[in-house]
Amino acid sequence: MTPEEFRRYGHRIVDWIADYRTRVGDEPVMSRAEPGSIRAKLGVAPPDAPESFEAVLRDLDAVVLPGISHWQHPRFFGYFPSNGELASVLGDFVSTGLGVIGLSWQSSPALTEIEETTTDWVRQMIGLSAAWSGVIQDTASTSTLVALICARERASGFSLAHGGLQAEPKPLVVYVTPHSHSSVDKAALLAGFGRANVRVVAMDERYAMRPDALAEAVTSDVAAGRRPCAVVATIGSTTTTALDPVGAIAEVARSHGLWLHVDSALAGSAMILPECRPLWDGIEGADSLVFNPHKWLGAVFDCSLYYVRDPQHLVRVMSTNPSYLRSAVDEQVRNLRDFGIPLGRRFRALKLWFLIREQGVRGLQARLRRDLANARWLAEQVQATPLWRVLAPVPFQTVCVRHEPPGLAGEALDRHTLAWADRVNRSGAAYVTPAQLDGRWMVRLSVGALPTERADVEALWATLRREAEG
Amino acid sequence: MTPEEFRRYGHRIVDWIADYRTRVGDEPVMSRAEPGSIRAKLGVAPPDAPESFEAVLRDLDAVVLPGISHWQHPRFFGYFPSNGELASVLGDFVSTGLGVIGLSWQSSPALTEIEETTTDWVRQMIGLSAAWSGVIQDTASTSTLVALICARERASGFSLAHGGLQAEPKPLVVYVTPHSHSSVDKAALLAGFGRANVRVVAMDERYAMRPDALAEAVTSDVAAGRRPCAVVATIGSTTTTALDPVGAIAEVARSHGLWLHVDSALAGSAMILPECRPLWDGIEGADSLVFNPHKWLGAVFDCSLYYVRDPQHLVRVMSTNPSYLRSAVDEQVRNLRDFGIPLGRRFRALKLWFLIREQGVRGLQARLRRDLANARWLAEQVQATPLWRVLAPVPFQTVCVRHEPPGLAGEALDRHTLAWADRVNRSGAAYVTPAQLDGRWMVRLSVGALPTERADVEALWATLRREAEG
Repeated sequence: MTPEEFRRYGHRIVDWIADYRTRVGDEPVMSRAEPGSIRAKLGVAPPDAPESFEAVLRDLDAVVLPGISHWQHPRFFGYFPSNGELASVLGDFVSTGLGVIGLSWQSSPALTEIEETTTDWVRQMIGLSAAWSGVIQDTASTSTLVALICARERASGFSLAHGGLQAEPKPLVVYVTPHSHSSVDKAALLAGFGRANVRVVAMDERYAMRPDALAEAVTSDVAAGRRPCAVVATIGSTTTTALDPVGAIAEVARSHGLWLHVDSALAGSAMILPECRPLWDGIEGADSLVFNPHKWLGAVFDCSLYYVRDPQHLVRVMSTNPSYLRSAVDEQVRNLRDFGIPLGRRFRALKLWFLIREQGVRGLQARLRRDLANARWLAEQVQATPLWRVLAPVPFQTVCVRHEPPGLAGEALDRHTLAWADRVNRSGAAYVTPAQLDGRWMVRLSVGALPTERADVEALWATLRREAEG
Repeated sequence: MTPEEFRRYGHRIVDWIADYRTRVGDEPVMSRAEPGSIRAKLGVAPPDAPESFEAVLRDLDAVVLPGISHWQHPRFFGYFPSNGELASVLGDFVSTGLGVIGLSWQSSPALTEIEETTTDWVRQMIGLSAAWSGVIQDTASTSTLVALICARERASGFSLAHGGLQAEPKPLVVYVTPHSHSSVDKAALLAGFGRANVRVVAMDERYAMRPDALAEAVTSDVAAGRRPCAVVATIGSTTTTALDPVGAIAEVARSHGLWLHVDSALAGSAMILPECRPLWDGIEGADSLVFNPHKWLGAVFDCSLYYVRDPQHLVRVMSTNPSYLRSAVDEQVRNLRDFGIPLGRRFRALKLWFLIREQGVRGLQARLRRDLANARWLAEQVQATPLWRVLAPVPFQTVCVRHEPPGLAGEALDRHTLAWADRVNRSGAAYVTPAQLDGRWMVRLSVGALPTERADVEALWATLRREAEG
């Protein structure tokens, strides 16, 4: 495609996206596609000759849209928000158009330096001290894997330079809770700890890790000849946005030499609000934390920020320095390849830079406060309505609810819950996520898509009542 | 930013990118920015109030461009090409504009099904049998880490479900060559094998792994009580695009139960040319392979394809299934979260789909043949010129050269090589990558940027002679 063709078709696609974002609220939120129905519209073999770009554009409407569940829809209440603010979309578009790769500082200095600046801006925005350094990773799954590998290497005296984890005489142990994200468990297994060494610590009635139970587990592992290595605390768990007490956990971690990694993938956004920061009091005692601006904050996916207090651990574990990547200025600059798993990296900082500048910190704060108020309003409606329950505290923007008709319990209640949630999703009027809490199904309502206003939350509540009580 | 503002500024950015791609050849290829000079133009603190988007747009020229080394430049001959074909840029832009996330099939069916189809198209294009399944990862670093973790788990009887790698009684060993990519070494260390268990196998005079040396190393490790686990063969190594003999290595792997992972990150593109396929003869004997369409083929970064013959190994190692990700159709569909490390995933297939359709297989083939011919022409010029040498076979599009003036050897020759390569890069006329081969510096000339025509290669050769022979 020539630059002039790109100009012509690029304008068409800008308009297509603008129209899409304008009208997305008229679409059913969840795709109604049947398994295999999209694939059936695609050729089994690749086209030998070039196709007209007009045909490609037509397929956006004919093939792609019917297979889209609309995350940017005003009545998307599923999973967690994944907001793609339009200024951020443009920042990412510039990155793609430039097509530069950050193998090293020299391979595009702006890529590294704008990433250093924007990650430091966000550090200030969420109230972390200057002791933290940030880098952009793809997802929290990767950030947490990086953290657990660094923890493993610190605890083993950097065994990677010698016999590896397999040569370690005593098993290293990782501490989590039943409400840690699935990626924490996965990261521990990928890092080679083994399920037998992933210790699940008891929670209190608010689904928060009990620091006394953590201390006991650590002591008991030490007595059994194992070596406590890392603990993962969550600020804003996926099921209920529960809060582990970071300060108390940090004390246990410090006294036993554990690496403390904090998963605040969702709730990190809330920390741009000074009134929310008491919720992660003690955060300065952590070794690493992950926060995804690609969730609630509005940076387009993928943009997961990984902050560490001592980047030398990261560099010591992740660094590679083959001859073809060296340059004369390596002593003066940061080579971000040493801060994560991939060697190549996109110019990811542009999407964050555009977002923060176009919205300003105040603009971002105002939107998040809107969402917190909407979630509070929704929780109040649910609580005030007979037969409906809010099942967990609502510190942020996610409300866990259940409709409990008289006489329904156990599996019958589960069937009722899953059935009405399915009716809500199939209706197209809203998209919600069922999940299990204390062994029973409930429904998570995660407020905070970009275009979601109070009227949309009111519409959600009306839909829930209709489909559940109906 | 409202959709109408997006429309206005989006058109501006389309034009900015079109203009950039039109005029990029007039820019010095390597950025002349000094360390810290970009950061100095950025605010130390984030803006509290929103900035005008005009100011953001102005900074693209004032702040970003001076810090760009131009990978899409016709005289970019550094590293490997990272081609961002403009049709692919638009595919990625649509993905960003839609802002959907593939946590599960249901969370956007088109994302999964177009990824299944396009990875299968590419499988056919590079001549792999239908026994292979593909998935898109971010980079070859990640794909190789996934491969080595799967190999580790297969060899250990899925120790992740029990005591982990640390409980293994005998060390698992990974086999590489001195020319394996730095990411292979890094992946082995991250996966916990330890440097002592990364066995470097001897090469022949063409920088290819010697299968007899591999067999000897395996036998000797077994005798010493270690367990051979995986071998990584490279098709198109980074330093010289050397070729390990996949067929013979596969035989050794089969007879000793090794997982064979093939790193064809660059050279996988060449396999869309039937005349190149003899170069990876025996590929069907591998367990996994990685090929990056974001290099030479033209899909915008990041788009690394990971193919496996038995996806069940992948699923068994990577799968997570928390309640909030389950859906009623899980038995009928592929959930791509089970095929890699991250849970969240962009709609990455669009950029590959747009590329293949707009170019057609024939269009892509024609461009790659152009580049192969240009590289051959360049190698012939170098070989025919006194005091210049081509240092390694040229099976693809990278030519390794040295200018060897009489009387210069050892470190004096290294100083000469690094000095003229630096003069070339600082001149702005071309961008090349020095690297070490057999302990001495040489210069890699990697032909194949999208806009690179014969005249650009001629200009490169004139620049090299001017700066080296001076």
